Parts: sequence; C-alpha cells; structure tokens
Amino acid sequence: MSLVVIGSIAFDSVRTPFGERERMLGGSAVHFSLAASFFTEVRVVGPVGDDFGDAEYAVLHERGVDTSDIERVPGGRTFFWAGEYGYDFNTRDTLDTQLGVFGEFDPKLSEESRAAEMLFLGNIQPDLQYEVRRQCDRARLTGLDSMNLWIETTRESLLRVVGDVDLLFLNDIEVRELMEEPNLVRAARAMLELGPRAVVAKQGEYGASLYAADRFFSMPAYPLETVRDPTGAGDSFAGGFMGYLASRGPDASEDDAELRRAMTYGSVLASFNVEEFGTDRVRRLERDEIDARYEEFRAMTEISSAPMR
Amino acid sequence: MSLVVIGSIAFDSVRTPFGERERMLGGSAVHFSLAASFFTEVRVVGPVGDDFGDAEYAVLHERGVDTSDIERVPGGRTFFWAGEYGYDFNTRDTLDTQLGVFGEFDPKLSEESRAAEMLFLGNIQPDLQYEVRRQCDRARLTGLDSMNLWIETTRESLLRVVGDVDLLFLNDIEVRELMEEPNLVRAARAMLELGPRAVVAKQGEYGASLYAADRFFSMPAYPLETVRDPTGAGDSFAGGFMGYLASRGPDASEDDAELRRAMTYGSVLASFNVEEFGTDRVRRLERDEIDARYEEFRAMTEISSAPMR
Repeated sequence: MSLVVIGSIAFDSVRTPFGERERMLGGSAVHFSLAASFFTEVRVVGPVGDDFGDAEYAVLHERGVDTSDIERVPGGRTFFWAGEYGYDFNTRDTLDTQLGVFGEFDPKLSEESRAAEMLFLGNIQPDLQYEVRRQCDRARLTGLDSMNLWIETTRESLLRVVGDVDLLFLNDIEVRELMEEPNLVRAARAMLELGPRAVVAKQGEYGASLYAADRFFSMPAYPLETVRDPTGAGDSFAGGFMGYLASRGPDASEDDAELRRAMTYGSVLASFNVEEFGTDRVRRLERDEIDARYEEFRAMTEISSAPMR
Repeated sequence: MSLVVIGSIAFDSVRTPFGERERMLGGSAVHFSLAASFFTEVRVVGPVGDDFGDAEYAVLHERGVDTSDIERVPGGRTFFWAGEYGYDFNTRDTLDTQLGVFGEFDPKLSEESRAAEMLFLGNIQPDLQYEVRRQCDRARLTGLDSMNLWIETTRESLLRVVGDVDLLFLNDIEVRELMEEPNLVRAARAMLELGPRAVVAKQGEYGASLYAADRFFSMPAYPLETVRDPTGAGDSFAGGFMGYLASRGPDASEDDAELRRAMTYGSVLASFNVEEFGTDRVRRLERDEIDARYEEFRAMTEISSAPMR
C-alpha cells in the first residue's frame, strides 16, 4: 500500500555522553521514511529551506524515498533543533528550537499524496496533523506521534486528531499524561475509547507495548551496550512498523501475527537507529541485518510451554 | 531440590493511593517462601519477636512452609517497616524502620538448613548474607537480593557476597549503581565477571531481563489495571523463579528453556502479589490461576517467524 509521511525535516545538533554533532540531517519525517524504506516506497511531505541541499536529498534518494512533495521555501531556513541527553539517556533537554519554514507551513498535498492508503502524522503541531489527515481522507490506516509539548499547550487540538487516526505511537508517559491516568493499562484503554484501533506505548530502553480492544502485546528493547544518540528512535520504530504493514497489504493491520511482526520490525529499526548519531547507522543498514536482528528478538523473548504437572 | 530462604520476617505498614494497612505480615523471606511454596517445599530462616503469633505462623503453614528454623526471641520485637508509595507507584518513601530482633541477629542454621541444595539470601545486611552463605556451603544454587541502602553504606561487603552466589535478583537501577555504569547491559556484564552465573535485572512495571555469559532473555510485566501494593513483588518474583527451578532438579538452572520458564513463573507470582495488600492475594492463590497466567505471558510475548521474502 502507498505510504506517506508528514513531519519535521530538520537539522539536529545533539550532545550526548558519547560526543556531539552539529546540524545533522534529522526530523521525524526523515527518520520515519528511512526506516520505512526497507519495506516499501514512502513519500515525504514537509517544508525545507535554502540550507537543505543536495547532500540531504541524497540521503533520502539513496534509500529510494520519494521527495517530490518536499516543499523548498526560497529564502527560508530548515527547522532546527538542538538537544542534550543526560548520562544514562533518561533525560533530554531541548537547548534550542528554530521553527524556520515550519512557522509558516500550510500543507497543500499533491494529488499523489492525498491518495495515500497509509499515512503517518509525525510529531508536529496537532492542528497541522488534523489538516493533513483531512486532505488524505482516503487513507485506510493512519498513524500518529506527538509529544508532551502538545499535550501541555494544545491538548484539545491533540485530542481532536487522536480521535481521527487508527494507530497511536506515544511514549508511555505521554499516554498517561494525555489521559490524566497514572496506570498505563487504564490510560491506554481510555485512549482507545477516543477512536484509535491500537495504542503503541513506547517505553524507550524498556521496549514497547501494543494495546487494542481485544489484544495486548509487549516487546522488550534490544539490549544495546552502546547507545550513542536516541534521537529519532520513536520515528524509526513507527517507520519500521508502518513500512512493514504497508508491504503486507490492506488487511495486515487486522491480523494479530502481522501486528506482532510490525512491532518487532519497529523495535529492530529503532535499535539500529540509536547505535550511531543521526541517520548514520540506518543509512548503511542492510536488509539482512534487519532480518538477523528480527530473529534475535524472537529468540530473546521466546517462552516454552509449561511442563506437564 | 531442598530450598532455604533467609531474609526479613516483618510487619509492614503500607500507604498507597488505594488505601493503607497497618502491621501486615511481610518481609522478604515471607513473600519469597509463599511464592516458592507453589512449586516446592521451602524452609524459612530468620528471627521474630513475641509479637509474631499463631495467626502469622498459620499463613506460612497453610502454604506448607517449614517454619522450624524461625527463631522466636523472648522479649523481642519483630522487624517493622512502614512505607508510602507515590501516585503512580514509581516512588517509595520509607517512613519508619525498626530492626527489633534483627538488630542482634546472629544466624546459626540447623543442620537441615545447612544441607540445603538451594539457598535464597533475601535483602538483609550483606555480612549476614555472607555468613549464611558460608554455613550453607553445600548449596548448588544460591540467589541473592539487595537494595540501594546496602550499595550506599556497605558496598564492599555487598561485593564480597555477590562474588559468592550464582543468581542475582536486583532492580536495574541497583545493577547500574553497584557497578557504577549507566548502561544496563555493560553493568550486568561487569557484574557477571564478579562470579555470578546470571543477573536478573528487575524493572518493576516494565518486567525483568536475565543476563548470563551466553544468553539474554527479557520478559514484560503483566499488564495490570490495578496495582494495590508493590511491596514484596521482587521477593515473589525470586520465589517463583527459584521455587520452580527447585522443582525441576539439579540441572534445571543450566537449561535455557527452564530458565525462561523460571523467569515466567517469577513474573506470574510477582503480578499476583501486587494485586492486593501484603500477602492477601498470594494466600488465596490457586495453582490453576498460576498456570493460566503463565499461558497469558506466553501469548502476549509470542512473535511469529518473519514471512518469506
């Protein structure tokens, strides 16, 4: 199925205990589309400025990502984010945010993008997400990510778009915060009542859990000895998840085994993404490595039947 | 295999968002032995005071726990702990600790206890754990729990006993803190170099992971809508884990599938323990409920093979 992502296309400056990097290619739409590109063709929608050049386009083109709906704004500056992670990566401070061309962004999708069967609304202002959702009214499966900023500043707008999508990809803390319910299971159930068919609660180094009306599934994270840069892990997860489903046809999202595979591929892509700064690891990732790690996930979670008593 | 546990036998006063209870039967040895009792016979070693009466013994005897090595100190008072949990159970404050008979405890194990093939050293002062470990020198498999208090106040003593046991059951934060290494995988590997064959990193609502030289295994926690009292969850986990292994014979701890089952039974017992205050839920637990939840754990973690490409 055709897959379109809208989200930030950005330059990121990141400081971690392992070093720092200036103005790397990043943003939710970039991390999502690179991850999804291993499974299906993906179109990226979003604005960039004059500072977004051939080198940045090349990263996307090398992975076969369709960039024809990236809107280059003459005289504009690409979205910029700078952040710093604490020593165990459990804290992240935003040091700088410059909206640039995103400040004036008024999405007008091409006919090809409007016809998408699958849509991912990366973490941007929820009214923009809602507007894109309206334009892509033929999408059979829409995923959404958000963040604490929008929960705290535009809660009603966020709840409106949450009610209009199928899959939510949120951190477990955000699920609790948005539903104002400290127990994650109850919070996820309350969220399902707003409309989505499934809630994926991302739990960072602890993995991710999927909640739906009639199913529950939980995945640990891959045990990495070295995490260099967690930026984009959630978008890589969503990209692996939705990219895989897109490759499996219109009914895959109804199939329990396929959803579990999607969770696994999402976890695999997220685990590679954090191994190096920015997009470095995913850029040179091979499909065989993805398949090998999928098998590692299977092995590290498998439980035999209980013995006869 | 015969299983002995030494640890606190206590009265606990607990305040949670769901209410409070005064002077309930608790303590690491009590929670451990009740959980283990579903799989094997278990002997409890530890001191109590005059205030430990027939009602308390009855809870243990109902589950077939051997209490003949509980030492009742005339004129003494049983260990007392009071604590309070925050609204999402992610914080716990100790409000009061009264060592009572534990202040003077000098373990002298009976011949039957010294002959134990399996030993669990519940969370008490590490020099006491070491002394008991020395007395039980025929144990083929010894497990150990500890806490941040001992890491911070008696680190060298704790490292000594860690080097003399087979299985560690610690919170992931404690693994990192003891090894002074923020990455859990590296911290667990460093800990294995001290001597233990496996490190079980308990992660509360996120589950638990097992690290050994040649294996890794990860379990999510059971998705509970209502957690009433997490006190004793870790001891119930260790009790289910070691009780199951004790029931499976001397080579079970070398068998990958058996270790995974042990992780699962540990998770099952911990999940029941937290559903009600103190020992209430585990006291009236039935073996069939344990087996049914084991199957739920299997179902909620199972991943199919990747499809052919």
